[in-house]
Amino acid sequence: MSKQKRKRVVILGGGFGGVYAGKYLEKALGRRDDFEVVLVNKENYFVFQPMLPEVISGSIGLLDTVSPIRRLLPRTSLHVRDVESIDVANKTVTTSPGFRPHAHTIAYDYLVLALGNVTDFRGLRGLPEHAMPFKNLADAVQLRNHLIRALEEAAIEEDDPALRRQLLTFVIAGGGFSGVEVAAELNDFVREIARNYKGVDPRELRVVLVHSQNRILPELSEKLALFAQDILMRRGVEIRLNTRLEAATGEEAILAGGEKIPTRTLVSTVPSSPHPIIDGLDLPKGKNGRLITNSYLEVAGADGIWALGDCAQVPQHTGGFCPPTAQHALRQGRTVADNIVAAVRGGKRSEFTFGGLGQMGALGHHSAVAQIMGVNISGFLAWWIWRTIYLMKLPGWGRRLKVASSWTLDLLLPAELVELKLTGSMGITQEHFEPGEEVFHQGDLGDRIYIIVNGQAEVVREDGDLEVLLARLGAGEYFGEMALLKRSTRGATVRCTAPMDTLSLPKREFSMLASNLPQMRETLERVMEQRARSNAQKTGGA
Amino acid sequence: MSKQKRKRVVILGGGFGGVYAGKYLEKALGRRDDFEVVLVNKENYFVFQPMLPEVISGSIGLLDTVSPIRRLLPRTSLHVRDVESIDVANKTVTTSPGFRPHAHTIAYDYLVLALGNVTDFRGLRGLPEHAMPFKNLADAVQLRNHLIRALEEAAIEEDDPALRRQLLTFVIAGGGFSGVEVAAELNDFVREIARNYKGVDPRELRVVLVHSQNRILPELSEKLALFAQDILMRRGVEIRLNTRLEAATGEEAILAGGEKIPTRTLVSTVPSSPHPIIDGLDLPKGKNGRLITNSYLEVAGADGIWALGDCAQVPQHTGGFCPPTAQHALRQGRTVADNIVAAVRGGKRSEFTFGGLGQMGALGHHSAVAQIMGVNISGFLAWWIWRTIYLMKLPGWGRRLKVASSWTLDLLLPAELVELKLTGSMGITQEHFEPGEEVFHQGDLGDRIYIIVNGQAEVVREDGDLEVLLARLGAGEYFGEMALLKRSTRGATVRCTAPMDTLSLPKREFSMLASNLPQMRETLERVMEQRARSNAQKTGGA
Repeated sequence: MSKQKRKRVVILGGGFGGVYAGKYLEKALGRRDDFEVVLVNKENYFVFQPMLPEVISGSIGLLDTVSPIRRLLPRTSLHVRDVESIDVANKTVTTSPGFRPHAHTIAYDYLVLALGNVTDFRGLRGLPEHAMPFKNLADAVQLRNHLIRALEEAAIEEDDPALRRQLLTFVIAGGGFSGVEVAAELNDFVREIARNYKGVDPRELRVVLVHSQNRILPELSEKLALFAQDILMRRGVEIRLNTRLEAATGEEAILAGGEKIPTRTLVSTVPSSPHPIIDGLDLPKGKNGRLITNSYLEVAGADGIWALGDCAQVPQHTGGFCPPTAQHALRQGRTVADNIVAAVRGGKRSEFTFGGLGQMGALGHHSAVAQIMGVNISGFLAWWIWRTIYLMKLPGWGRRLKVASSWTLDLLLPAELVELKLTGSMGITQEHFEPGEEVFHQGDLGDRIYIIVNGQAEVVREDGDLEVLLARLGAGEYFGEMALLKRSTRGATVRCTAPMDTLSLPKREFSMLASNLPQMRETLERVMEQRARSNAQKTGGA
Repeated sequence: MSKQKRKRVVILGGGFGGVYAGKYLEKALGRRDDFEVVLVNKENYFVFQPMLPEVISGSIGLLDTVSPIRRLLPRTSLHVRDVESIDVANKTVTTSPGFRPHAHTIAYDYLVLALGNVTDFRGLRGLPEHAMPFKNLADAVQLRNHLIRALEEAAIEEDDPALRRQLLTFVIAGGGFSGVEVAAELNDFVREIARNYKGVDPRELRVVLVHSQNRILPELSEKLALFAQDILMRRGVEIRLNTRLEAATGEEAILAGGEKIPTRTLVSTVPSSPHPIIDGLDLPKGKNGRLITNSYLEVAGADGIWALGDCAQVPQHTGGFCPPTAQHALRQGRTVADNIVAAVRGGKRSEFTFGGLGQMGALGHHSAVAQIMGVNISGFLAWWIWRTIYLMKLPGWGRRLKVASSWTLDLLLPAELVELKLTGSMGITQEHFEPGEEVFHQGDLGDRIYIIVNGQAEVVREDGDLEVLLARLGAGEYFGEMALLKRSTRGATVRCTAPMDTLSLPKREFSMLASNLPQMRETLERVMEQRARSNAQKTGGA
């Protein structure tokens, strides 16, 4: 047997599309060795997306929704790295550095693009800073922790009704499957655990689902959607239709039309954007920036590149394009694998012809809605079907056993309310403020320094009933350094006067920088002296 | 019934001591209402410390080692905050701010100090920056993630043998119970999951346990300790006796005597220090900074204050002081509760007279050592006893059921190898370098800027075989900014010449600061120009 150079297939992305393409490629490999498979994913696990909302309530274990890719694809080389760039002309992919600052370059013969999409809040005032996405395991765990923290704080802050109201109000934007499932799980979870918080009255809890159309779940028939709305409302979810989230600050969600909902918890499942790497590729794209493919899933305008899943616009044989669902992505994985094998070994290419089986969405507490092969199902039966189908779809018997056992125990045991804090330093934080909002108030503890990126603020000192304007600040200026350097409380109030974005640095980080960078310290001291002089004049020498 | 002011008992700390004191106080409260209990803990859960090492291998669920304090103590007010200070004269405790920057002050009638101890690497060269502690759940999860990441990277870095050796070497300092259990679990875990990493040969793995005495487990008899050593060594753990960890950098562990072990994973379970709040109290302290108490657990020199657990030096009725173990802390909790009830209602105080039942330590893979009421037990029987005792000691039937089910599934299923990344931004990082080490190398990607806190470095440019010294840098100077501002690779190598501590800021954070703080940008640009001019002269105008 003459030894020929093995072809290399590189798959970018470890979601349903990428992992199933890898799985069918490994299957086709069998005992042969004529190609190898490399998969690049930024996590070492595959997320079983449909179960992600269950992480919120902890009704399944934190790791039960994910499977290690190495176990799923034992013959594939996994690179747990970010993709930095793709060079289509030279057929190479560059990945981010690991422990040492060298980039890795991987040459490919065939490339599979399965990078999915990302939640992208750019251009939406305050959303990048204050809305939480719900895409991956870290998002789900972080939301869960945030909910618990909000209840913990509400239980302590007995004397501050405005803060309590914010802490106990939870806003979810987007009434598609993802948003509805998050709202249902979140609502069940906070209402169940609230019983453990003596200081929290369950009637104070408010869960608001905001949706731009005149009914939720546009993916389903009107009848099922209304059934779902009814269930959610009976469980206490407020549904706000025909409006959308327009802006956000750390203190409130602002709806189109100007209504403000005071909240510290804002989840947004919209909008989705193409992955930045797909965005940067010079290849023809369709709606929402998805790569245009033919029915063989070959990317238009490129040779040896396939695309599938949420980053691809795949024509449906019945007309239109495939919806971005798991059932489509995993079957596209099979078609891509078949066609790559045909490219390596010769043979006939396959067309993608799957039309979809239906849609299911869980509503929490043993209820769901489903539309399966044209039949509408709702309530407990839909929930039972939902669980069974997903359980059987989970990769590997071990995982199924674990999830089944978690679900069984969950019927018997109360919800977990452990907040798993892992993040130590918060680093630099970005915040958005709207006019009238206070960044901090005179007398507060000085816990961070702020830099104005854009917008405006005023610095005022309260002197009894009198309010003295000390300064107006704009882009590039900073404030809040005095309380940090002098270890005291805030000497004045800073209030936003025009929509403002800030960066802020926590005390600990600031002190490290200020005490070690002589230039920074000198600059700060100079500014402080100037301000002290000017303030003394304005407040009459106090 | 005349309404009298209810007394308030404030417990600081939610470990074995604090939680059991709360539990017995709630029991004594019964139907009466003559005192209330407030517990302050920085987490909302109680950690079942003896099982923490099992989190490394994931043989029990991530949350199975912890219990929500609210469920354990339903009648206690829980404040999930850090303790900032104690005012003994005015009988108040101040806690850190929550969502809003106000400190909370809690007045107490009776105070229980159960703050435990902390791992304190201060004064040990490079340990604060590079050694990982193993005290709480976050430490355990972070170590687990770090191990998985090291294997992921080793599997990719096929062409860099020095880096691979570092990545596949794991050093644990401290051969007491905690260090031995961590070494045993870590060793089992990396050897099991290595099978899933095609590029990693299990023979490359190296697990080193460093201990200062001539045998490990000083808590046990020599016979049992030698049995444990033997088991660990047969499983592949290298045991280094009569030496200790002296210093560390990001690249190596340095033992007393100067031996250097190249590693990227260094866990240290020593040394323990008093909690900073205990440290700051003006009350008499004994060995290791523990608060001196009498046999009623009353703190010497203070009225209405009790101390217990690892932060207290409690006399043992047989002479000497109580060891810092869970079995002592939880029984001290009962004594403290009894004595507080006596103080509130009148009655006789109780003395603490418990002498200890024995000691147990798990060695992984169905093996353990135990010394129970004078009897030595080792191997499978000890392991079975270990599991059973701890299972029965877990608080609540729900938790027991969950752990029992996890342990059962663990016998059937392979180890989890999911890396649960939760941290987004890393913020400012502190690093330590020893002479000869490179901070970065010419040609590396520029991913962060460095500030020298103390020590020295030289900047050299390689020009073929020639090495040109460009600059010597000392405290307060920074370097590495050029590659960041110009988005290029490092133009020179920076090498440590005298032991050096640095702060560094990642690219993303640095760019945010530099583009928004005009002063910072101007200073940087000035320094860059000067350096460019001086470098051009030194390298002949290149």
